[in-house]
Amino acid sequence: MSRPAISRYPVPKLEDLPDDIRARILEVQEKAGFVPNVFVTLAHRPDEFRAFFAYHDALMDKEGAGLTKAEREMIVVATSGANDCLYCIVAHGAILRIYAKDPVIADQVAVNYRKADITPRQKAMLAFAIKVARESAHIGDEDFVALHAHGFSDEDIWDIGAIAAFFALSNRMADLISMRPNDEFHLLGRIPRAPKK
Amino acid sequence: MSRPAISRYPVPKLEDLPDDIRARILEVQEKAGFVPNVFVTLAHRPDEFRAFFAYHDALMDKEGAGLTKAEREMIVVATSGANDCLYCIVAHGAILRIYAKDPVIADQVAVNYRKADITPRQKAMLAFAIKVARESAHIGDEDFVALHAHGFSDEDIWDIGAIAAFFALSNRMADLISMRPNDEFHLLGRIPRAPKK
Amino acid sequence: MSRPAISRYPVPKLEDLPDDIRARILEVQEKAGFVPNVFVTLAHRPDEFRAFFAYHDALMDKEGAGLTKAEREMIVVATSGANDCLYCIVAHGAILRIYAKDPVIADQVAVNYRKADITPRQKAMLAFAIKVARESAHIGDEDFVALHAHGFSDEDIWDIGAIAAFFALSNRMADLISMRPNDEFHLLGRIPRAPKK
Amino acid sequence: MSRPAISRYPVPKLEDLPDDIRARILEVQEKAGFVPNVFVTLAHRPDEFRAFFAYHDALMDKEGAGLTKAEREMIVVATSGANDCLYCIVAHGAILRIYAKDPVIADQVAVNYRKADITPRQKAMLAFAIKVARESAHIGDEDFVALHAHGFSDEDIWDIGAIAAFFALSNRMADLISMRPNDEFHLLGRIPRAPKK
Amino acid sequence: MSRPAISRYPVPKLEDLPDDIRARILEVQEKAGFVPNVFVTLAHRPDEFRAFFAYHDALMDKEGAGLTKAEREMIVVATSGANDCLYCIVAHGAILRIYAKDPVIADQVAVNYRKADITPRQKAMLAFAIKVARESAHIGDEDFVALHAHGFSDEDIWDIGAIAAFFALSNRMADLISMRPNDEFHLLGRIPRAPKK
Amino acid sequence: MSRPAISRYPVPKLEDLPDDIRARILEVQEKAGFVPNVFVTLAHRPDEFRAFFAYHDALMDKEGAGLTKAEREMIVVATSGANDCLYCIVAHGAILRIYAKDPVIADQVAVNYRKADITPRQKAMLAFAIKVARESAHIGDEDFVALHAHGFSDEDIWDIGAIAAFFALSNRMADLISMRPNDEFHLLGRIPRAPKK
Repeated sequence: MSRPAISRYPVPKLEDLPDDIRARILEVQEKAGFVPNVFVTLAHRPDEFRAFFAYHDALMDKEGAGLTKAEREMIVVATSGANDCLYCIVAHGAILRIYAKDPVIADQVAVNYRKADITPRQKAMLAFAIKVARESAHIGDEDFVALHAHGFSDEDIWDIGAIAAFFALSNRMADLISMRPNDEFHLLGRIPRAPKK
Repeated sequence: MSRPAISRYPVPKLEDLPDDIRARILEVQEKAGFVPNVFVTLAHRPDEFRAFFAYHDALMDKEGAGLTKAEREMIVVATSGANDCLYCIVAHGAILRIYAKDPVIADQVAVNYRKADITPRQKAMLAFAIKVARESAHIGDEDFVALHAHGFSDEDIWDIGAIAAFFALSNRMADLISMRPNDEFHLLGRIPRAPKK
Repeated sequence: MSRPAISRYPVPKLEDLPDDIRARILEVQEKAGFVPNVFVTLAHRPDEFRAFFAYHDALMDKEGAGLTKAEREMIVVATSGANDCLYCIVAHGAILRIYAKDPVIADQVAVNYRKADITPRQKAMLAFAIKVARESAHIGDEDFVALHAHGFSDEDIWDIGAIAAFFALSNRMADLISMRPNDEFHLLGRIPRAPKK
Repeated sequence: MSRPAISRYPVPKLEDLPDDIRARILEVQEKAGFVPNVFVTLAHRPDEFRAFFAYHDALMDKEGAGLTKAEREMIVVATSGANDCLYCIVAHGAILRIYAKDPVIADQVAVNYRKADITPRQKAMLAFAIKVARESAHIGDEDFVALHAHGFSDEDIWDIGAIAAFFALSNRMADLISMRPNDEFHLLGRIPRAPKK
Repeated sequence: MSRPAISRYPVPKLEDLPDDIRARILEVQEKAGFVPNVFVTLAHRPDEFRAFFAYHDALMDKEGAGLTKAEREMIVVATSGANDCLYCIVAHGAILRIYAKDPVIADQVAVNYRKADITPRQKAMLAFAIKVARESAHIGDEDFVALHAHGFSDEDIWDIGAIAAFFALSNRMADLISMRPNDEFHLLGRIPRAPKK
Repeated sequence: MSRPAISRYPVPKLEDLPDDIRARILEVQEKAGFVPNVFVTLAHRPDEFRAFFAYHDALMDKEGAGLTKAEREMIVVATSGANDCLYCIVAHGAILRIYAKDPVIADQVAVNYRKADITPRQKAMLAFAIKVARESAHIGDEDFVALHAHGFSDEDIWDIGAIAAFFALSNRMADLISMRPNDEFHLLGRIPRAPKK
C-alpha cells in the first residue's frame, strides 16, 4: 500500500516555501526529530500559516503564567477529544505525555477527564474548557466564580478559554483538510527516552 | 443606568496601546466612523490581537478569489448564528448588509439560511460552513463532491471551511469575554446611507 | 427579480375573505401601517385563523397582569430564537423594540438572553420559557420554586409557559408554510419615530 | 393515599364554569362516559380554553379530508411520544385505538412508528410530523416532494403539520400544569367493548 | 393480513432447540401462559441466549436485596423508554404492572418518571438509571452521594446501574432484530385477574 | 502517591474467588502476562461475571465467521469511542493493535473511523455499529440493504449489532464502577514484540 496522504490539499515542498516558514519548520524538525504534519500541511497557505502559529505561540509558549505547559496541553487534548479531532488528540497527546512525564494521562484526558489522574483544580479547568469548546454561549458569571474558587485568576481564565477557542479553530482546520497525525506521535512519551548526551 | 460594559476584562485606553495596534484601531475608526468593540476588547492581549487580525485579514480581505466579500460575511453570520454568538451576528450582520446592499439578508442568514434570499450555490456553501462549525469530525469526501457540483474549487472550499473555523475561535472569544456589540451595528446597513461628499 | 413569496400556500385576497377576518386585518393595517404576513397567510384556513388569533389575544393582550407587554414579547422572541423561527424573531422583535423602547434588546434576546440588558427576574423568566419551548417534559416543582423566588405568582408562570407553548405552535406554522416576515419589521423600532400628530 | 392531583393549578367546579364551557364538558362526558382531564384543567382559563378547543376541532374534526381520523390521532400520538408528553400519549393513544380498532397500534406509534403496523404512506406522514415537532426550522421543499410521492396533497401536508404544531402547544400545556391522564384512558380500546344498546 | 413477523431473523421451532433452552421456554410458557417473543427470537443463537438469560436472572431474580422486584422493573421500563425500545417497554411494562399491582404505573414510568406515582427515592433511582442508560461517561461521585442520601447502599447502586446496563444491551438486540412484543403484553396487568384456583 | 483505585467497589483477592473464576483469571494472566482489570473488578459479583464472559466469548471468540477478530475489535473500539468509555478504548485498543498488527489503527478508530486506514466495507460496518450504539431505535431495513451491498450476510449483521450491544453493556459497567485500564494496555501493540522463544 502506498503511503497515506497527510492532507486533502497539496503539500508544499520545503524548498518551495518562503524563508520564514521554512526556518520555522527546520527549527521544529531539529527539536522534535521530525516535522509534525500540521506545519507542512498548513504551509499550503503561507499567510494563514503565519497567523496560526503566531496565535499558537502567544497562547502555548507563555512564560510565568498561572497554567503550566502540561496544563495548557491538557486543555488542548480534552477539547480536541470533545471535538473528536484525530490529529490534535494524537499530536498534543504526545506533547502532554512529555510535559507531564506521564505515559497514560493523555489517553485519560482525551476520553474522559473525570477519570484522569489530575487534581480537582485541573478537572474544573477542563470542565470550563469543554464548555467553551461545545457551548460557549452558555458561559456566565457563575463559571468565573467556580474557577476563582480553585485559585484561577481572570487572566488564567482568559488563557483557558483562549486555548479552547484556538483549538476550536485548529480542530476544524485539521478536519477540513483531513490532516493525518505523524506515526511518531502515537508512541512519543509512552516509554522512557534515553537521556540526551 | 450606567453604560453597559463591553467586556468582562479591562479595556485598554487607546493611548496605552502599542503603536501598531493603535494605528490599526485609528484606521478602522476612520473608515467605519466608530471603533468596533472587538478591537479595543481584544487589545487587552496585544500578541493575541495581532495574530487574530492577521488571521482575519488573510481570510476576509482576500482579493480575486472564488467567494465574494458578501459571501464571506454570509459564512460568518450563518456560523455565528449556529453558535448563538451575539457580537458576531450583530457586527458581521451589519457588514453583510453593506456588502450585499440588502437590508434583510443578515437577519435571514443568521436565523435560517434555508429561507434566505440567496442562490442554491450559496445555500450549499452555508450548509457546509455550518457542518464545519458544528460537527467538523463528520466532514467527508462527499461534502467536497457536493460543493464541486456547485462550481466551488478546492481552494474555495478551504476558504469556506477556514472562515467557519476562524469564527469558531472568534465566537468563543466573544462569549468568553462577553463582548458587547456596538449599538451602531444594529442599525448599520438597514437604511440607505446619504452619499459621501 | 420578482417579489419573493410570503407563503408556500395560496394567499387569499382581502376581498375574498370572510367579513370578520377581513375586519381584523383592516384593523391591524390601520394600526401598524401595513398588514403583517401572518394575517394574510394564515387566512388561507379561516377556522384555524380565528382560533389562532383568539388564542394569541387571550395571552398577549391581557390587562393588569404580572407581566408587562414587553415581557410577553421577550418570551416570544427568546423562544422563537431557540426554535430558529425567522418570521417570529423578526416580527416580534420589532414589537419588542417598540414596547421596550429599546432598539437593541430584541437582537440580544433572540440570540442569547444571558447577555441582554434585562433584569435577573427577566432572565429567570426567559430561562423557564426556553425550557418550556425545548424540553417541557423536564419541568418540575423546582422550576416553580425558582420563579416564585423572583416574585412570579403561579398565574404569572402559567402566562410565561402558555406564551412559550403558543409560540411553539406559531413557530411551527411559520416554518411549515415558510412564512416570510414583512420587510418593514426588520427596521421597525430601531430608530425614533416622529411623534404622531 | 389521597387521590393524585390532576393539575398543578386549581381545577374549577363544573357549576362555576361559564355556560358554553360547561355545555361542552357535559357533551364530552355524555359521549365518553367520563370527563377527560384536559377539559376541566384547562377550564381554569376560559378564554384560552375556548381558543384551544376551537383550534383542536378545526384540525381534528375535519370532514372529507385526505387524512382519516385514525391518521390524525397517529400524528398526535407520534409527536407526543417524541415530546415525552404523558397526558397526550395516554389520552390520544386511547382515541387512536378506538378509531383504528386496533389494541396495540398506539403503543407502537408512541414509541417508534418505524415498527408500527402501518403503511409506508403513514410512516412518511409520521416522519414529517416528527420533523415538524422537533426541528421545524429544517423543513424544506424536499419534504413536500417526499410527501407528494405518497399521494399527499399540499392541503394534506398543512393538516399534518398543523396537527403536529397544535400538539406542540398542547404537550407543553400538559407539562406546564402537570396534567394527569384519567385512569380510564389507559385501558380504553384495549378490549372489545360490549355493543351499545 | 398475514401475522406480522416477530424478528428480522429466522425463529427456531421449539423442537429444534437444545434441551436446556427448550426447557427454559416451556417453563416460562407454563408460568406466563404464552411464550414471550424474546425467548424464541434470541434462541436463534443458543450460546448468546444462555448468556443473556443467565445475566438477566442474576440481576432480576435476586433475593433479599435493597430493590424490590417492582423497582427492578421500573428501571427496565424507564431506561427502555429513554431508548425508545418497543419490545422492552411493552413486555416489561406488563411485568411492572403485575409486580406493582398498579395498572397505570408502567405508562407513567415509560414516558416520564417525574410524573409517576412513585416515591422521591424511586425517582432518584430512575434519574440515575437514565444517566447510566444515556450518558454513563458523566457518572461521578456526586451521583453516589445523591443516592446514598436516599438510603441506597453501594450494592444497591451496582444493581441499579447493572440493570440499566443490561437493558442497554437488551434494547439494542430488540432493535437489531426488530423484536415484536406479544400482543398479550399490551393488556397484561391492566385489569384485575381472576384469582387462580 | 498511592496506587490509583481500579474500581469504586471492593476488588476480591484471587484466593477468595470461586474456582471457575480463579481459573479463568489465571488463564488470561498466563496468556497476557498480566490480569486485565475487567476480570478482577467484575469478579465482585460472580454470577454476573460468569454471564458477562460467557456472552463476551460467544461474540468475540467465534470461529469461521464473516468478521475477522480484528474487525470485531474495531467494533468494540469504535462504539466505546462513541460512548467515551476509557477502559474499553484503552484495553480493546491494545487488542485491536495486536490483531491488526497496526500500531496506529486503534487511535484512529476510537476517535473517528472515517479517517482510519480501513476499507470502505469496514467503514460501513462501523457506521452501523455506532448507529446501534447511539440510536438503535432508528435501525431500519435500509441499514441491512446498505450492509448487504458490502457483502455482509444477515448473520454478519447480527454479529456487528450484537457486539455493539454487548459493549453498550460493558461500557456502562466500566463507567459505573469507574474501572481503570491497566497501565500495560496503553503501550501494548505499539512497538514490535520480541519473538517468543
